[in-house]
Amino acid sequence: MTPTITAFQRSPDRGRGLARDMPVRWALEEVGQAYDVRLVSFSAMKEPAHRALHPFGQIPTYEEGDLALFESGAIVFHIAERHAGLLPDDANARARAITWMFAALSTVEPPILELATARLLEGDKPWSKERLPLVEDRVRDQLKQLSVRLGDDDWLDGGFSAGDLMMVSVLRRLNRSGLLDEYPNLSAYVARGEARPAFKRAFDAQLAVFTAASTG
Amino acid sequence: MTPTITAFQRSPDRGRGLARDMPVRWALEEVGQAYDVRLVSFSAMKEPAHRALHPFGQIPTYEEGDLALFESGAIVFHIAERHAGLLPDDANARARAITWMFAALSTVEPPILELATARLLEGDKPWSKERLPLVEDRVRDQLKQLSVRLGDDDWLDGGFSAGDLMMVSVLRRLNRSGLLDEYPNLSAYVARGEARPAFKRAFDAQLAVFTAASTG
Repeated sequence: MTPTITAFQRSPDRGRGLARDMPVRWALEEVGQAYDVRLVSFSAMKEPAHRALHPFGQIPTYEEGDLALFESGAIVFHIAERHAGLLPDDANARARAITWMFAALSTVEPPILELATARLLEGDKPWSKERLPLVEDRVRDQLKQLSVRLGDDDWLDGGFSAGDLMMVSVLRRLNRSGLLDEYPNLSAYVARGEARPAFKRAFDAQLAVFTAASTG
Repeated sequence: MTPTITAFQRSPDRGRGLARDMPVRWALEEVGQAYDVRLVSFSAMKEPAHRALHPFGQIPTYEEGDLALFESGAIVFHIAERHAGLLPDDANARARAITWMFAALSTVEPPILELATARLLEGDKPWSKERLPLVEDRVRDQLKQLSVRLGDDDWLDGGFSAGDLMMVSVLRRLNRSGLLDEYPNLSAYVARGEARPAFKRAFDAQLAVFTAASTG
């Protein structure tokens, strides 16, 4: 059965692939699962029909028969659990890959989200200039520790896994901040993720939505 | 095999059960799994021996034979996967319970963490008084939507699950903020979680560590 995901009708990042449908598309491409996409407008996202699928009125959602999920992390995990390619077979290695999924979303991402909020929602506030360096330092705290752990390895724990997929997705939010450049092994790690054919297919697919909306 | 978790030698919340060993203890109590606790000082948490277990130098960690995990969400999931009681048997219901785990950590918690940061790390900044209401409103945005979804139900999706365990754990960080009181069904939901015998055993165990450290 072909699952259906939702994505922004007009991507607020102008096709840079930072919306949360991107990790889901990437996971589906990694495992070779075809999928349908239903585009949702900002107003429709807040309507009861969409909220029945996503209580927080966001994208992505995932529908497959009578199963409906939301949360990109949960959807990626669901895909990883049901298809080969994103979680190791060995039980301990599998548990560690899942740990990195949670670490990406629960430890590394919160200060990155705070930085985005500081720029997008508080960029015009009188405290913005003085406060931004504090927020950036909190991002650096996590990047530094992640950089040490990654070291010279290609991926966080052995082969590429759903943990790397989520971590690269989270770190990509920093692409324009310059912060990632301070940690060359993390920059290379993100580039390694972005170079995967499955990433490229997913990226092109979401970009095509933005391009079509812009020219349509 | 009895797993070993790590916890703060001296809890920074003075035994209020807001440290991240609490959801792990709670999960272990829910499934009836005995566990050992190794207490770690703030300085030892940053040492290489502990960082080998937890790359971000935090608690909790989870060791069981040759498996070592970190991240409370990942550890709770590991426990839930291996023991009955925290995830439904039905495949779709199980996927939805996992979705709520991710929603707790990835959607509901980030603004709550930002509020804690605003108070603890930026409480003395000149912008604190003017900025705090903005941060609180971002927390309210999520609480309101969660409140609508929960409605009159006892738990987020059928019976109590690991999703509720994580969500209640996340919401408990707001206990002293007054924000939860604005959503009576969420207050009642948290109280319902805290009333579970397994929660109480876990809470008492972590409080005993603080009490012993204070009087020892």
